[in-house]
Amino acid sequence: MKFEKKYLRYKEVVDDYLQGFIVEKKPHSIYRPIRYVLAGGGKRIRPVLVMLSCEAVGGHWKDALHAAAGIEILHNFTLVHDDIMDNAASRRGRATIHTKWDPNVAILVGDELLACAYRALLKTRSSRIQDIAKIFTEGVVEVCEGQGYDKEFETSLDVTVQDYLLMIRKKTGKMVTVATEIGALIGGGTPGEFRALSNYGRHVGRAFQLQDDLLDIVADEKEFGKTVGGDIVEGKKTFLLLEALRRARGKDRQLLLSIFRKKGAAKENVDEVRRVYHRTGAIQATLRRVKQDIARAKNELEKLRPTPARAMLFWFTEMLLHRTY
Amino acid sequence: MKFEKKYLRYKEVVDDYLQGFIVEKKPHSIYRPIRYVLAGGGKRIRPVLVMLSCEAVGGHWKDALHAAAGIEILHNFTLVHDDIMDNAASRRGRATIHTKWDPNVAILVGDELLACAYRALLKTRSSRIQDIAKIFTEGVVEVCEGQGYDKEFETSLDVTVQDYLLMIRKKTGKMVTVATEIGALIGGGTPGEFRALSNYGRHVGRAFQLQDDLLDIVADEKEFGKTVGGDIVEGKKTFLLLEALRRARGKDRQLLLSIFRKKGAAKENVDEVRRVYHRTGAIQATLRRVKQDIARAKNELEKLRPTPARAMLFWFTEMLLHRTY
Repeated sequence: MKFEKKYLRYKEVVDDYLQGFIVEKKPHSIYRPIRYVLAGGGKRIRPVLVMLSCEAVGGHWKDALHAAAGIEILHNFTLVHDDIMDNAASRRGRATIHTKWDPNVAILVGDELLACAYRALLKTRSSRIQDIAKIFTEGVVEVCEGQGYDKEFETSLDVTVQDYLLMIRKKTGKMVTVATEIGALIGGGTPGEFRALSNYGRHVGRAFQLQDDLLDIVADEKEFGKTVGGDIVEGKKTFLLLEALRRARGKDRQLLLSIFRKKGAAKENVDEVRRVYHRTGAIQATLRRVKQDIARAKNELEKLRPTPARAMLFWFTEMLLHRTY
Repeated sequence: MKFEKKYLRYKEVVDDYLQGFIVEKKPHSIYRPIRYVLAGGGKRIRPVLVMLSCEAVGGHWKDALHAAAGIEILHNFTLVHDDIMDNAASRRGRATIHTKWDPNVAILVGDELLACAYRALLKTRSSRIQDIAKIFTEGVVEVCEGQGYDKEFETSLDVTVQDYLLMIRKKTGKMVTVATEIGALIGGGTPGEFRALSNYGRHVGRAFQLQDDLLDIVADEKEFGKTVGGDIVEGKKTFLLLEALRRARGKDRQLLLSIFRKKGAAKENVDEVRRVYHRTGAIQATLRRVKQDIARAKNELEKLRPTPARAMLFWFTEMLLHRTY
């Protein structure tokens, strides 16, 4: 309970920072959409991880606030541009920028968000600022590479489980690692603490993404907030699909291949595909991987000094695992 | 002559850096277009200004090479994204990225270029690296704001000469200032030298853009490499159009207003508009401003110690003024 309260407090601090970051400014064609994006909410997982990582090595969370906000703004930049490329009409229940305005506005707003992300980050006071900015930048590079792979996979017919793992490591995992690494540097962590938090971030980042794939299949539709089975209908090459394909034989394999090749399935087929996922053991295998990653993540936390921040990181890790949304 | 040789040498060093910067890498969907962009040539004015500014305050140009390349990569990022927004099919005689590939690729390639720009910049060894990265970032913010104004002006009916000057200061001028300022910091310039080079950049940047507007009207078509009068046909709200509109009366004013309001003119009308530009004194006024800016730029150079680099900056300033391409 006290952890949840602290999490909501940190989340609020980040929300307030983002609200104050963009004041009424011209040109309106950029700053109105930017305020709209930054007011869009979200779980603020990455910035909270920056702050907790900083605390876990002995720093004060306030010292990490600029960087935390920078990472959240960066995350929002990727959402705005990905939504254009994915032709997504809405996000978190609100119209996307290129839908509410137009694609040109969304391109420019994304660019400006990326610049604003650096602006926030570079307010950080730290003797390690150059390393921090380098880590942040490698994060941006990998996020772009991950999105590049993701788009390539849409039309590729020989995507493997390994390809998928590489893609999510870059597209979603890397920014979690960047968050914990930067937090560790700002907090003045030792090389050992830095490594532990870096590894922690890598495992948590992957678990989080695989969990996301699972939730598309097993989540409660009302709580999840988006249509369950959406990945199947879209024909997304998720870990589940690729793992099930690797395992399936006969008729099951034919069904999965048709989704794989024809880019998707009819809504009526979702239940059948879900049964194949169960039957082939793909769901169990994914769950096993998530649990393994969570165990490894916790193992890394064990290497840190026992502090309230570390205890909170344990809780945070569990929360991410048990979310049903 | 020795200056031209030195300029070509520096340009080659930058070209080589950019060629070596992106090796064969995956995903191909990003890195192939990136190599295509960076091999696209150009005058490399901004990076050469970084190197010369560094030298002019006593530094070695090699110390500024990473930052110089960073600014050139950043410039190329803006071109790739602007070309999408402007629906431009070609640049420097080659197909643009969104034409040769597609808009999604161009968005992602631009994003990755921006990250690569920071990657190059952050290799710089300087005790002032945080200030350097901040200046660079404010440059990105202003370039986006400038592009935002530029797009707003396309459909706005009350754009003034002052609005236009604000727009070009942000969209094209700022990056020239960023180049000279960063060069001055890397070279270890005094606050006075930094100010002089910053002011120099501001004046040169504006002169360069106004000169560009003029060249659209008076340049030799073969040397210029693009259709003369293109701005008039497109109905671009250039300094010339806005200044002529401010001055014109009667029939001349009606002609300009029709271009202004209806977004452009027929190719047959270009000569008539050019005559109005002459008749109203708009061309002379623009030329006067260019000369005034060049004089002010040189005046700032006078404040620096007399070095070969300063002499070369004088030459460089003249070269920019007298180019017919």
